[in-house]
Amino acid sequence: MTKRVHNFSAGPGVLPVPVLEAIQHDMLALPQAGISVLEISHRSKWFIEIYQEAQANLRQLLNIPSNYHVLFLQGGANLQFSMVPLNLLRGQNAPADYIVTGSWSVKAVKEAQREGEVRVLWNGKDDKFVRVPKQTELTFNSDAAYVHFTSNETIQGVEFAVEPDAGEVPLVCDMSSDFMSRPLDVNRYGLIYAGAQKNAGPSGATIVIIRDDLLTKVPDNLHTMLDYRIHVKKESSYNTPPVFSVYVIMLMTRWLMNDIGGLAEIAKINHQKASLLYNLIDNSNGFYIGHAQADSRSLMNVSFNLQTPELEQAFLSEAAKHDLHTLKGHLSIGGIRASIYNAMPLESVQALRDFMIKFQTNH
Amino acid sequence: MTKRVHNFSAGPGVLPVPVLEAIQHDMLALPQAGISVLEISHRSKWFIEIYQEAQANLRQLLNIPSNYHVLFLQGGANLQFSMVPLNLLRGQNAPADYIVTGSWSVKAVKEAQREGEVRVLWNGKDDKFVRVPKQTELTFNSDAAYVHFTSNETIQGVEFAVEPDAGEVPLVCDMSSDFMSRPLDVNRYGLIYAGAQKNAGPSGATIVIIRDDLLTKVPDNLHTMLDYRIHVKKESSYNTPPVFSVYVIMLMTRWLMNDIGGLAEIAKINHQKASLLYNLIDNSNGFYIGHAQADSRSLMNVSFNLQTPELEQAFLSEAAKHDLHTLKGHLSIGGIRASIYNAMPLESVQALRDFMIKFQTNH
Repeated sequence: MTKRVHNFSAGPGVLPVPVLEAIQHDMLALPQAGISVLEISHRSKWFIEIYQEAQANLRQLLNIPSNYHVLFLQGGANLQFSMVPLNLLRGQNAPADYIVTGSWSVKAVKEAQREGEVRVLWNGKDDKFVRVPKQTELTFNSDAAYVHFTSNETIQGVEFAVEPDAGEVPLVCDMSSDFMSRPLDVNRYGLIYAGAQKNAGPSGATIVIIRDDLLTKVPDNLHTMLDYRIHVKKESSYNTPPVFSVYVIMLMTRWLMNDIGGLAEIAKINHQKASLLYNLIDNSNGFYIGHAQADSRSLMNVSFNLQTPELEQAFLSEAAKHDLHTLKGHLSIGGIRASIYNAMPLESVQALRDFMIKFQTNH
Repeated sequence: MTKRVHNFSAGPGVLPVPVLEAIQHDMLALPQAGISVLEISHRSKWFIEIYQEAQANLRQLLNIPSNYHVLFLQGGANLQFSMVPLNLLRGQNAPADYIVTGSWSVKAVKEAQREGEVRVLWNGKDDKFVRVPKQTELTFNSDAAYVHFTSNETIQGVEFAVEPDAGEVPLVCDMSSDFMSRPLDVNRYGLIYAGAQKNAGPSGATIVIIRDDLLTKVPDNLHTMLDYRIHVKKESSYNTPPVFSVYVIMLMTRWLMNDIGGLAEIAKINHQKASLLYNLIDNSNGFYIGHAQADSRSLMNVSFNLQTPELEQAFLSEAAKHDLHTLKGHLSIGGIRASIYNAMPLESVQALRDFMIKFQTNH
């Protein structure tokens, strides 16, 4: 079998080997159906059970209250940048408030502005997005249709340690890159969305968790596929859902529940992995320069620089020789980025840490 | 290994075993990357090559001229029902003309009406959608923004043997269920779209082929993810594309080119498979009653009834005992439907035919 390398990709990201093995095992024919998961009808008993288990497992893992709907859609976070304001801002006669902490929140604002007034409550751009705001820096408006924030910015590597408190205003969160990486109080949110391709599965599926009362705000003039109410009513099967992606999401929830032991456990592991790298950075005497401020550091994406672009290039080349891959930072900020999502093994992070120590010694 | 059954699902539909085997073989790690296809970045060299090969193969198989763009999007035909009028009808000051031949074209009309005037050129509803119109029944309007038709209706099992001739008006086609089932003169179309989950791959990807000049019609007020121009400019990677689905589409094109020998060859096989069933229906002395009129019969979806619902139920139960599955007709018209897409083996159709003969003899 082909050897697996250490894959620090920012997304699509690494998946657990047991999940990949389960997919592989049944690829030609599911034992229950005699049909591959790639060929099976979304109306089949088998898929309905998979869909229900994925939903039930998410509800259990995240402790999702019964007045929230769980949807599996397509189009990624980018389509949600539009669906959120289409459904919750259009025709509201109230502005939406956005907290801007990096490249993804900038994109979310751009689409929202097509549907109504957007107030930017806080913008980290002038500081090059090195941190998220403190609660005391945020003044919320009680008249807002909703407050939108991005819990983790993959490019800049900044993450909210805890969600902002917006009082009674519905909190909407793009949780694409740290979804299911830690326990969550869903009650504090009006709507959560997450592209699956970081912690929840492969690309091609988007999880949306929406509080039931928000559906009353949806205007009646939306295209069918862009209307949350339709997807709620049709249980994500108004059209053919991404069957395979939902199946993998279900396997990922099983892995989190059975192999890991839930979100509190994965949060511990994620802390441990991130600490390995951040401690090294902090103790490198400036050889490695972290992008984010310490209190805003992402546990999912560790972005850092070396002193020169040449040294960064040497780092990437030598890392590849140690089977440490996909470490190049995003074009927009350069440098190095190690994405260490849920499924990233501790051993891979240790291998990176060991390499970083060795690289510093040699340079 | 689990035995595979005969899978007559209308979609997601059957895939070729060699394609499933190729997916299975590399599921844990692609030899070129040491990473699973489910974990690999859409910005990786590996995926860019897969994307380019999928596109090149589609261009070769369908003989797509260079002034057409090939896109891999998400959201299925249902999202295209909206994207087509959003991009090509909104702000045009011209109506769009729709030919309505079954359940899917009805849905396409509904979304188009949100963006402008829709004229229905022909509607098979009063005849219960048993046929498609003849060219002589269609009067095209030279002022139309475009003419939309559905080449194959999966539910009613009616298919255009050849596309209508709309003169200079751009022809837009929902080709979801017979895409790549036969050779095509792409030059006759302005835009073709197809959900992949019938002949082209798994659910979760939509292929769009659009003539370059139509992009000048796109209004400037569209949400980014709904704007064809963005997806053309960003080569379907404005956001994370459905990496796995594109990979499977690429494998499907390889299979069509290398194992089958191209679209003329698969068309012959599709004719042969459909004839086995339609000939039997025609010679059954009314025991099996085809839904579609003879000259409108679909080569992809063979929809038929038996004399009573009880007999149909008995048919489905006994068929299942012969490993013949997913033969129940769509709820909206009932009866039996055998979907026999490209990847449906001739042997499976023969097995169904043999069973149908036996069932008639016994009843």
